[in-house]
Amino acid sequence: MKLVTFALAHGAERVGVVDGDRVVDLAAVAGATGRREAPIGTMLALLRAGPTGLALAAELVQAARRGTADWHHPLADLRLRAPVPTPGKILCVAGNYAEHWRESGLDAPSKQGFEPQTFIKPVTTLIGPDDQIRLPGEICTAVDYEGELVAIIGASGRDIPAERALDHVAGYANFNDVSGRKLTITTPRPDSPRTCFFDWLNGKWFDTFGPLGPWLVTADEVGDPQSLELQTRVNGVVRQHGTTADMIYTVAETIAWISRFTTLQPGDLIATGTPSGVGAATGTFLAPGDVVEVEIEQLGVLRNPVGAATYTRGDFDA
Amino acid sequence: MKLVTFALAHGAERVGVVDGDRVVDLAAVAGATGRREAPIGTMLALLRAGPTGLALAAELVQAARRGTADWHHPLADLRLRAPVPTPGKILCVAGNYAEHWRESGLDAPSKQGFEPQTFIKPVTTLIGPDDQIRLPGEICTAVDYEGELVAIIGASGRDIPAERALDHVAGYANFNDVSGRKLTITTPRPDSPRTCFFDWLNGKWFDTFGPLGPWLVTADEVGDPQSLELQTRVNGVVRQHGTTADMIYTVAETIAWISRFTTLQPGDLIATGTPSGVGAATGTFLAPGDVVEVEIEQLGVLRNPVGAATYTRGDFDA
Repeated sequence: MKLVTFALAHGAERVGVVDGDRVVDLAAVAGATGRREAPIGTMLALLRAGPTGLALAAELVQAARRGTADWHHPLADLRLRAPVPTPGKILCVAGNYAEHWRESGLDAPSKQGFEPQTFIKPVTTLIGPDDQIRLPGEICTAVDYEGELVAIIGASGRDIPAERALDHVAGYANFNDVSGRKLTITTPRPDSPRTCFFDWLNGKWFDTFGPLGPWLVTADEVGDPQSLELQTRVNGVVRQHGTTADMIYTVAETIAWISRFTTLQPGDLIATGTPSGVGAATGTFLAPGDVVEVEIEQLGVLRNPVGAATYTRGDFDA
Repeated sequence: MKLVTFALAHGAERVGVVDGDRVVDLAAVAGATGRREAPIGTMLALLRAGPTGLALAAELVQAARRGTADWHHPLADLRLRAPVPTPGKILCVAGNYAEHWRESGLDAPSKQGFEPQTFIKPVTTLIGPDDQIRLPGEICTAVDYEGELVAIIGASGRDIPAERALDHVAGYANFNDVSGRKLTITTPRPDSPRTCFFDWLNGKWFDTFGPLGPWLVTADEVGDPQSLELQTRVNGVVRQHGTTADMIYTVAETIAWISRFTTLQPGDLIATGTPSGVGAATGTFLAPGDVVEVEIEQLGVLRNPVGAATYTRGDFDA
């Protein structure tokens, strides 16, 4: 199944299932068929219900095919959100493709010589398909794409062995780990490794720097996550073209590593690193008006336009 | 006001206000006085309601004083949770007290020579008062306390000027940025700055490594956050004794910096760094049976026992 979160005209969010060129509105079907208590109010509620939740969603799709037009929306008419709009955490792996180490001017480490290097993006980075990646303005003028496969956790776990890690995955989606490569800091600073690291980390935190979608494809449909072709295009030009077969640490190994520190919960995102071809390698960064597309085999196309900063210093947006 | 989140016997969580040795149960008072729609169901809902929410809470406390015993619980009988049990993000400053840089064997940078260095702890680190800090076992045997003042965001904002940053703070609480100083990695690795950084970062991510509480004290009661005495005790022995006056970056400057990257939202935690006296400076780490207390002037005592790891490899805890 392809699971989506979509917005109704008045702003409320619903969970749906893509069925051809239509989206089944799970809440509409559940309400009309006497299942108002079904855990389909949000994607997190659905994921927390585990296999039972997914079986229920499949059943509601079947019911919708026999039902009325009110239970569907044309896919083309919908404003999709990030499929998981409010994950508990967005966990990312840095440097998980050897070619990306090399294009960054570094030696790719041997798998035996290190462990996955993981960091967190704030949940406020998250946006959905067609939402605008907003350039942050003067503080960071070198903004880059990083097309990535994301695994979405379905079952909680801590200290999960790699052999069973994929049992904890509900599904997969395209992700763009948008990254500010260079912060413009006005004060003179020592160019220490520590300073560089925090700049690198904070460059990944800007609002809108986490496009996700267009949908969550359930694990049963994706099969082996290590044999998927991945492309990132800017204005239609292919900039990244790789395969998840080239990951240094597999999805399963990455989940096993992270779960040695932290309990993984339904809805958590595990972004698995980017292949070579980032803009930083050639000094070509995103500009207002660009359109970035991340397309992983079976996962559809995640398309986001790039816009200029719209913040007014001191805005209260409460 | 001192705002708490507490657990009822059947596990549901409520928001309360400490009133002497009793806690006013806001949902009970609101329900009994015809205000069932009041935004007091969770601490996040209350904070999102802004000054209106706090005024309503104060009004419910007044009503409770005239009401029945059902609207109160004896404080001593309650199981308190972290006052904000589900923040969107936990943002922390590294190295914000000069003496802590020096005890770590580093030169304290001049304020003009750098910017606040910020990182994120996963929300799964969060625990409440009296909850156990669980040592993670063989992967990390050097676990340390870091007593810190935390500011809790009340009003959303992006790119907030320091002069107005405290207007975005709902209140303050004690926080313990529990930190694993040394990860036990079994594979041989280069001792590169990059490897060290990720180990440092991941050492702060273990479950239970973020005690918060016992309550959120509203900003009006705390006054100036830069003149608070801070103590951390282990088994009753004072290990850290400082004042928030010694922060390199003030609470306001830190909020201003972070909000240049990321929209701050009600409930977000801003942990403002730890003074000198951490265990790593003397090689003295936490052991099962220890009791750690963080006490900041006006904010009460955050007390947490330390226990051994209880994970079984591969646990599903869904």
